[in-house]
Amino acid sequence: MSSFGTLFKVTTYGESHCRSVGCIVDGVPPGLALTEDDIQPQLTRRRPGQSKLSTPRNEKDRVFIQSGTENGKTLGTPIGMLVANEDHRPHDYSETDLYPRPSHADFTYIQKYGSKSNSGGGRASARETIGRVAAGAIAEKFLQKVSNVEIVAFVSQVGSIKMNRSAQDPEFLKLLDTITREEVDATGPIRCPDSSVAELMVKEVEKHRDSKDSIGGVVTCVIRNVPTGLGEPVFDKLEAQLAHAMLSIPATKGFEIGSGFEGVEIPGSQHNDPFYFDEETSRLRTKTNNSGGIQGGITNGENIYFSVAFKSVATISKEQATSTYDGKKGVLAARGRHDPNVTPRAIPIVEAMSALVLADSLLIQKSREYAYNIVKS
Amino acid sequence: MSSFGTLFKVTTYGESHCRSVGCIVDGVPPGLALTEDDIQPQLTRRRPGQSKLSTPRNEKDRVFIQSGTENGKTLGTPIGMLVANEDHRPHDYSETDLYPRPSHADFTYIQKYGSKSNSGGGRASARETIGRVAAGAIAEKFLQKVSNVEIVAFVSQVGSIKMNRSAQDPEFLKLLDTITREEVDATGPIRCPDSSVAELMVKEVEKHRDSKDSIGGVVTCVIRNVPTGLGEPVFDKLEAQLAHAMLSIPATKGFEIGSGFEGVEIPGSQHNDPFYFDEETSRLRTKTNNSGGIQGGITNGENIYFSVAFKSVATISKEQATSTYDGKKGVLAARGRHDPNVTPRAIPIVEAMSALVLADSLLIQKSREYAYNIVKS
Amino acid sequence: MSSFGTLFKVTTYGESHCRSVGCIVDGVPPGLALTEDDIQPQLTRRRPGQSKLSTPRNEKDRVFIQSGTENGKTLGTPIGMLVANEDHRPHDYSETDLYPRPSHADFTYIQKYGSKSNSGGGRASARETIGRVAAGAIAEKFLQKVSNVEIVAFVSQVGSIKMNRSAQDPEFLKLLDTITREEVDATGPIRCPDSSVAELMVKEVEKHRDSKDSIGGVVTCVIRNVPTGLGEPVFDKLEAQLAHAMLSIPATKGFEIGSGFEGVEIPGSQHNDPFYFDEETSRLRTKTNNSGGIQGGITNGENIYFSVAFKSVATISKEQATSTYDGKKGVLAARGRHDPNVTPRAIPIVEAMSALVLADSLLIQKSREYAYNIVKS
Amino acid sequence: MSSFGTLFKVTTYGESHCRSVGCIVDGVPPGLALTEDDIQPQLTRRRPGQSKLSTPRNEKDRVFIQSGTENGKTLGTPIGMLVANEDHRPHDYSETDLYPRPSHADFTYIQKYGSKSNSGGGRASARETIGRVAAGAIAEKFLQKVSNVEIVAFVSQVGSIKMNRSAQDPEFLKLLDTITREEVDATGPIRCPDSSVAELMVKEVEKHRDSKDSIGGVVTCVIRNVPTGLGEPVFDKLEAQLAHAMLSIPATKGFEIGSGFEGVEIPGSQHNDPFYFDEETSRLRTKTNNSGGIQGGITNGENIYFSVAFKSVATISKEQATSTYDGKKGVLAARGRHDPNVTPRAIPIVEAMSALVLADSLLIQKSREYAYNIVKS
Repeated sequence: MSSFGTLFKVTTYGESHCRSVGCIVDGVPPGLALTEDDIQPQLTRRRPGQSKLSTPRNEKDRVFIQSGTENGKTLGTPIGMLVANEDHRPHDYSETDLYPRPSHADFTYIQKYGSKSNSGGGRASARETIGRVAAGAIAEKFLQKVSNVEIVAFVSQVGSIKMNRSAQDPEFLKLLDTITREEVDATGPIRCPDSSVAELMVKEVEKHRDSKDSIGGVVTCVIRNVPTGLGEPVFDKLEAQLAHAMLSIPATKGFEIGSGFEGVEIPGSQHNDPFYFDEETSRLRTKTNNSGGIQGGITNGENIYFSVAFKSVATISKEQATSTYDGKKGVLAARGRHDPNVTPRAIPIVEAMSALVLADSLLIQKSREYAYNIVKS
Repeated sequence: MSSFGTLFKVTTYGESHCRSVGCIVDGVPPGLALTEDDIQPQLTRRRPGQSKLSTPRNEKDRVFIQSGTENGKTLGTPIGMLVANEDHRPHDYSETDLYPRPSHADFTYIQKYGSKSNSGGGRASARETIGRVAAGAIAEKFLQKVSNVEIVAFVSQVGSIKMNRSAQDPEFLKLLDTITREEVDATGPIRCPDSSVAELMVKEVEKHRDSKDSIGGVVTCVIRNVPTGLGEPVFDKLEAQLAHAMLSIPATKGFEIGSGFEGVEIPGSQHNDPFYFDEETSRLRTKTNNSGGIQGGITNGENIYFSVAFKSVATISKEQATSTYDGKKGVLAARGRHDPNVTPRAIPIVEAMSALVLADSLLIQKSREYAYNIVKS
Repeated sequence: MSSFGTLFKVTTYGESHCRSVGCIVDGVPPGLALTEDDIQPQLTRRRPGQSKLSTPRNEKDRVFIQSGTENGKTLGTPIGMLVANEDHRPHDYSETDLYPRPSHADFTYIQKYGSKSNSGGGRASARETIGRVAAGAIAEKFLQKVSNVEIVAFVSQVGSIKMNRSAQDPEFLKLLDTITREEVDATGPIRCPDSSVAELMVKEVEKHRDSKDSIGGVVTCVIRNVPTGLGEPVFDKLEAQLAHAMLSIPATKGFEIGSGFEGVEIPGSQHNDPFYFDEETSRLRTKTNNSGGIQGGITNGENIYFSVAFKSVATISKEQATSTYDGKKGVLAARGRHDPNVTPRAIPIVEAMSALVLADSLLIQKSREYAYNIVKS
Repeated sequence: MSSFGTLFKVTTYGESHCRSVGCIVDGVPPGLALTEDDIQPQLTRRRPGQSKLSTPRNEKDRVFIQSGTENGKTLGTPIGMLVANEDHRPHDYSETDLYPRPSHADFTYIQKYGSKSNSGGGRASARETIGRVAAGAIAEKFLQKVSNVEIVAFVSQVGSIKMNRSAQDPEFLKLLDTITREEVDATGPIRCPDSSVAELMVKEVEKHRDSKDSIGGVVTCVIRNVPTGLGEPVFDKLEAQLAHAMLSIPATKGFEIGSGFEGVEIPGSQHNDPFYFDEETSRLRTKTNNSGGIQGGITNGENIYFSVAFKSVATISKEQATSTYDGKKGVLAARGRHDPNVTPRAIPIVEAMSALVLADSLLIQKSREYAYNIVKS
């Protein structure tokens, strides 16, 4: 439903045209320094209207903490957060009163809820992700305190324009070791760290925008400095939780971790990540990282990295031959301005969902570590 | 942890060398005809030693229902099921007492549980999946009663040998409409429905087996006759639940639904699935199915289909330069016989996890439908 | 943590001195007529400052729906609700900076959260219950639609002043059949339906208020027109869920259902509720109702009724010899005005928690009924 | 449904006449010494046929661990456990084919599951509690390691025969400080530590047994050496979890903690537990313990104690005028031998459920303590 997590848990509410969107974050450790300033930056990165590549609706998205902090520190109690919906005029997409938008949630929401709402696919609005990003920012701040965990997502593909993201490529693995959010944002609106590819991607988006169309892309994310031992065997393997988290983001169609789909072609003898003893850190590490930092569902301390496929945006202004709700043939061209490509704005959402998965897994594992240390003694 | 689902819930137990493996399935509707004969076939399909392509250990895997049925019908109470571990001699892989197997769970289990068990990565054993398959068989029987739901998985890639699985290919979509388990099994041990490709796949597996190596593959799965309205918006979108379910299967590295990663390259105007009114069924359907049967996280009644990447098996007899637990360099060659490719045996597991996701989503949605029918009246 | 329920689920946030308190209610059926006017009455009944018996702080407690409704109907999406904390000046109980209040949560919150907050036992504030009452009002409206479910709580004891609440007393059982909220409120501030007892109760409260002390009481609650079959065998018996719900209300010390503690003295032959065929409703009913409407954890269609013990309020102005946080002996007399008895204000909270338990159980059972009807056919 | 707990979780299966009853315990810390010998004693205490006061059916109830241990130590993986149902002949209570037993679950199970099973109220069988007791024994062993937690339950009332259990009585509080299971069992079959009262209780049970009737009772339980800080504010207060756990035991009608129902009559100035600094343990303690060891839902380190009301057993051999399933008047006298009083056998069940609640709360709190220690530093 609208909750995610076990010990570190977020619950969200809100559609596009209601009073506000927001969330409750339960299980935040007490004593953490936290104000709106820790949360706003990622919300701002998520905001539309940031560049000529995204929709010009100017949402301000200012977050207000309602509860759970005192004098700039968390109390350990649930943190309520709220972002007002400034633009809640009814809406100007009147064709969508007649037509279910193809590949959008309009049709399926009626199947599910038995009636049509003004705002079409209610919670399918991108504004729903505000609560996730706000919650993720808190999770991330906690993870930084734990072990300086760093989470950096970037656009690795737009349409057929790709940067290299092969687990077999040492250059790519090196990039994962060092890439920062600042570097990702510095390459311009598309948030691809390879600036020459970034330029081509921008052109690709512009091309589809100019033809009133849209195009998809891939977001790749790396998580560094992850403690070992996170993730539960069997049903809640860490990669399963990450896949769940990523495929819960609107418009996603695929997830791959480590070597991913490419890896199936590589024989075990080359795909296996051999161990070596690392003198610097005094622990076993792996020479390669086809595993993507997770083995048997549990983190091994290497970088976690994965990619997420985002389809081409469903709402386009180009004419589409389709059917009305009533089954009559017709042509739909959505009014209004729409993002021709969502991947740059998806970056903070991917980062937020990653942080939520990790914070929850960490709390669960740390209680186990407590227990076996007690039991052993 | 070891439970999956909310209203239709399975909890599993068991490692490779303990007394038995099994599960408890809670939330099975009362009155369903059910005996061991409904469950055994999928367990038998999962079993090793079925062909020259899989490991020759001869596990018999006979399931015994412990509770929850009476006179061949379910009572509505939890169904306990148990499969004895016949082969529970200590084990003969003594090198693995010294070496953590690369890309296996040996190392991470120690990180998680603080000590090394004889059976290495305990629950990472493939025998853990027996409980899932048994539970899935019950879910499937229920789904058949609901709307004749059909779930068919098959191998679509081994190493670099692929059959076509593009959402853009009408032939592939047609195959998804009709393919049966019988057809899948009929093509021989590899379970690829395209018999010419199947032959090449078998050779690919044999090549790696003969060089004491292993190779990965892709399993594709279609689910037909799914009721509309299943899946929860936001965090529990149906594709998110399926991704979670699939990435929880050992050795998986990726998941894609509908057009998947390929779809990101297709502009929205071509990627969107336009609606039409279907006279035969008297409802809106879509002309294409890039969505893979799910829009906004909710089923639209079209075929659900997705693919899952399985990496090359980690345990190989080929020598690998790696490190001992103690950090000393050395060479590991795993003794014993190991599956050179797991995809054919993964088929019933993928089917089982699909059934579990659907049965749970269905029960949740049906309570909502009850409620809004009441509220409306 | 801060969530309650499975399919009908409320999550709350808020302490006494933060910006607002509120909740998210997930799983509300779509299509239900709902505005703030449906929620405000119970919040107003919960409010302090309603009579000379309760604290004069004048909180207005106006609720604002944030999401999940459109044109006065629910969408099926989560309903966010918010009540501003108007009075959030720091607080004037400065002694409690030095002293943990005896039998309050001040001390245990430090044990739990590792540091002391200004507002002492944060979530132990009575304002936390606002979110529950708001959510309960929605649950109740749904239950009324389902089967005209009626939930009425009243004060049955204050200190040693009791009205009869014995399961053996036909008069009491008759009262349970008919008592309404209007009748409960009509007897004056104490909300005991027996007006002669109510008068004595008021005097009892005044006596303790005048001596700067406090006194406890018992709230009894009846739920009528409950569908049969609700509640889950084993761990989630309906009475177990009700006990959980009631003991989660601040200041509660006990729960009993049906014949309760008194019932242990009655032999089975008299305690058992014999069946008879009721011509009017054409179904089996019971002649007596020692069971309190639940047998084997499952509703049988008779009235559910139970009682909840509330201890004497911990915060009193009377001097108490106790210890400072630092372990120094001293005398604490809490400043400010405090409720000398909480039972009248607890009435809507008990009703709300009852409604939440029932709405959740109902949704779960209705999916089962759907399933067995399908399976049978 | 059939699971209890979050991080330390038990799932049970089994009715009276199926192959076996059992459970899966998930979340048991790795490294704990554990064999069947740790579990059998409490199962044996739960067993019928232990004395002339209980039913003579001779169930042996030998438990077999299926998984999750190796060389006598837990692995951290789920522990499957199984007890065979030796006596699974159909049953000899043929009247109950015609009559729903009054105050039993026969009628409500049909309402819930839509059909009648041979074994009547399936999971309402006392054999269901075997899984709980087995799981509780593991939880208890863990808690002993943590802080030498001691859990001792005893019978404090049978019919109208009571021993003193008032929170106001220093003698009773002293008893709670020291009472052991050995002492409880030493007083004979009734398990009341006050031997003079015990004798009267035995007579009370015999009286009702001889008249083919049954009688209820109260079980009181104390938990010593509990760490502070356990229990979650708001919905999962520790007393709410205990109430849930206790009311989930068959035949329970009430729960009270600390001063309980009696406490409502005591003014706050006497009911509050004042603090003092305890030199011996160097921490704040309370002089009295009306709170029952929990304040604001969180443990304060004092003894937890509570009482649970068990109604008179529903199945009696005495004739009862009631109705058949078909609505015809008739007289039911249950064949077979039945426990005239269940309280002595309920002792290990109450202890087990207590241990399960505590182990789960402890694991949750320890992850929080880890987190705030990290965050502070």
